[in-house]
Amino acid sequence: MARFYKKTRSSMSLPSTETLLTNQDGPVLHITLNRPDSRNAMSLTMVNELMAVFESVANDTNIRAIVLRGTGGHFCAGGDIKDMAGARQQAASGDNNAFQTLNRRFGEMITLANRQPQVVITVLEGAVLGGGFGLACISDVALASANATFGLPETGLGVIPAQIAPFVVERIGLTQARRLALTGVRFKGDEALRLGIVHEVAADSEALTAALENTLTAVRRCAPRANRVTKELVLNVGHIPMNTLLDQAATDFAAAVNSEEGREGTMAFVQKRPATWNQ
Amino acid sequence: MARFYKKTRSSMSLPSTETLLTNQDGPVLHITLNRPDSRNAMSLTMVNELMAVFESVANDTNIRAIVLRGTGGHFCAGGDIKDMAGARQQAASGDNNAFQTLNRRFGEMITLANRQPQVVITVLEGAVLGGGFGLACISDVALASANATFGLPETGLGVIPAQIAPFVVERIGLTQARRLALTGVRFKGDEALRLGIVHEVAADSEALTAALENTLTAVRRCAPRANRVTKELVLNVGHIPMNTLLDQAATDFAAAVNSEEGREGTMAFVQKRPATWNQ
Amino acid sequence: MARFYKKTRSSMSLPSTETLLTNQDGPVLHITLNRPDSRNAMSLTMVNELMAVFESVANDTNIRAIVLRGTGGHFCAGGDIKDMAGARQQAASGDNNAFQTLNRRFGEMITLANRQPQVVITVLEGAVLGGGFGLACISDVALASANATFGLPETGLGVIPAQIAPFVVERIGLTQARRLALTGVRFKGDEALRLGIVHEVAADSEALTAALENTLTAVRRCAPRANRVTKELVLNVGHIPMNTLLDQAATDFAAAVNSEEGREGTMAFVQKRPATWNQ
Repeated sequence: MARFYKKTRSSMSLPSTETLLTNQDGPVLHITLNRPDSRNAMSLTMVNELMAVFESVANDTNIRAIVLRGTGGHFCAGGDIKDMAGARQQAASGDNNAFQTLNRRFGEMITLANRQPQVVITVLEGAVLGGGFGLACISDVALASANATFGLPETGLGVIPAQIAPFVVERIGLTQARRLALTGVRFKGDEALRLGIVHEVAADSEALTAALENTLTAVRRCAPRANRVTKELVLNVGHIPMNTLLDQAATDFAAAVNSEEGREGTMAFVQKRPATWNQ
Repeated sequence: MARFYKKTRSSMSLPSTETLLTNQDGPVLHITLNRPDSRNAMSLTMVNELMAVFESVANDTNIRAIVLRGTGGHFCAGGDIKDMAGARQQAASGDNNAFQTLNRRFGEMITLANRQPQVVITVLEGAVLGGGFGLACISDVALASANATFGLPETGLGVIPAQIAPFVVERIGLTQARRLALTGVRFKGDEALRLGIVHEVAADSEALTAALENTLTAVRRCAPRANRVTKELVLNVGHIPMNTLLDQAATDFAAAVNSEEGREGTMAFVQKRPATWNQ
Repeated sequence: MARFYKKTRSSMSLPSTETLLTNQDGPVLHITLNRPDSRNAMSLTMVNELMAVFESVANDTNIRAIVLRGTGGHFCAGGDIKDMAGARQQAASGDNNAFQTLNRRFGEMITLANRQPQVVITVLEGAVLGGGFGLACISDVALASANATFGLPETGLGVIPAQIAPFVVERIGLTQARRLALTGVRFKGDEALRLGIVHEVAADSEALTAALENTLTAVRRCAPRANRVTKELVLNVGHIPMNTLLDQAATDFAAAVNSEEGREGTMAFVQKRPATWNQ
């Protein structure tokens, strides 16, 4: 990726993390889930650290894309068994809300990540199960290895995909989500593409890297502030009455045209050169 | 199917029906539309009997899946002409609401069936038209023969797919539904798969039986109560504010973990054996 | 098309237009975007003329389908640069709302077109970009040439797809729309089909003409008033509570059965002949 982004700065502002590797490469923040011994199972610490990292860069317009992936050939195998054991112990000691709090926190994290102002790209390999599946469902661009394994194993374990299934419905609609949630079937990258969970499937890791590079090249062509405003716009569809949304969008359009980006974009187009943000 | 479910019990609690065959095979209730002379056209009696059967088993947690299919190589060819004639006669005798009542009742039936707590599986062969199409649209898993014929013939007959089209929109979205409803085009299983109406297509009846067996095997792996709670959860997406839904889901998650199913599921996982409900 | 619709009448009632060619051929109104020098870029005049034409025929039940296409091998390349320059000048003269007004008007046009009572068919060739993409997204049937190019180039120009992206979300869902809007990627007809933007793809212009003829043949089979009521019904899903919608639909069903169309449709079916509207 080095040839894409010559400038790297140290990630001074990023919170320190135990379960995540973070690396800023020009306008791209790479976040790697790093608990390879448990196929990057989503622990409470990891949830909290993801939230802290997302929040720390939310207003940083120098960061335009966030790439989320996992170490050791897996994205994320779901919830962490040890956390569950810990919550069971807490519950035994009288804290009846321990499971509930643990569970709800994961939902808070993907709710936040869904509305992260940057373009969020997930790179999906190996296990993409349970919470990992949920996390994949909020990315703006999801790139999968053909061998990645997707599924909602929860009800097979006697529990429910509580904070996950709603995001699967938002991702691929009720029709497909109800089958996946109620049968627990596992499937591979090509089926994930067909269902609309992911946007591209790569045959091998080289092709996956190329797909990521192409996506980042495309994102770099897009004006940073325009992309932030556009992401908020598309996420508000269905949550704000359409006419109200379009009124606001017209105001935002006028502001964009009159902004530095709008002037530079028009000039670059006329002069047939890349815009200054495209670097 | 006998080799899957060794225990069969007589279906004592099921209402007696004229237009339906019912048969309970362990955790699976089979309902067969049985009006082969009219390609299982959906009569008012059939609508009422379906509602009675669905309601009679709604709270029966021993029944975990409902398989809906038709006799004579057809699923259901739509509304019944004789009922229409009857309603026309009633209307002539001054009952202006006869058509309206007949029509609305069908919508009440699929509204109910859509939220049936069990996993509803449709096996779609031959005609899947009009009301038959609507009924297919509320199943959790829809399995189709490649030769099945789908379509909304209503406006070609001068009437409207009143209680059906809204469920087609919920099934496959406005974009595809508007074309199907306004052109009346007919199409086969592969196209139904592409449009997301069905989840699997089988080349012949042997493959269709195998697809059903695989689906039932998958459902049996899922804990009965966890599946019921999960089905309600996914059906509530978009009808309850997301944060409220996720709060409730976290409570349900904690309850599931602490339930007999939650304990058994965890233990079975650790002991690498099938859970007790997986039989 | 002449062999399909023998009767042609002069389009006396249609408003005169500078940027559009209009031609009524029996029950079909053909509207052609006609600014070939700018790949039919969507000027304010074109937006206003489209609205005027749509409004002038809205209540005309003799017109049952509207076919929208562009001259010169392109559908529409997006917004018009000259209009933007004009708005910039107005803005310089103190009219701060010029861009906003220009932008919002486009959204008003596709909002109107989306609910046009007739079956709206788009024939998509060449550039289908920005506003052209938005316009394609509201058609009941979208037919594309395999070589058509789709995309949202806005944020690459430093502006936002303000009145367009929300209709892309309504067309293909958030999951696909967020990627298209935030990467600006361009793609061809086959991918537009896979994403659900269009309903059919044709390899060449002959196949495209055949697809249009097949679609018009299908629409002619459908009763005019039944189709209008059905279109309103499907567009109201998600905007009116489901039970209220189904109650209204049952009333509309009863009215349709008792209408001239309902009687003719039933009789034609029994007599195994085409209905009178099928000509």
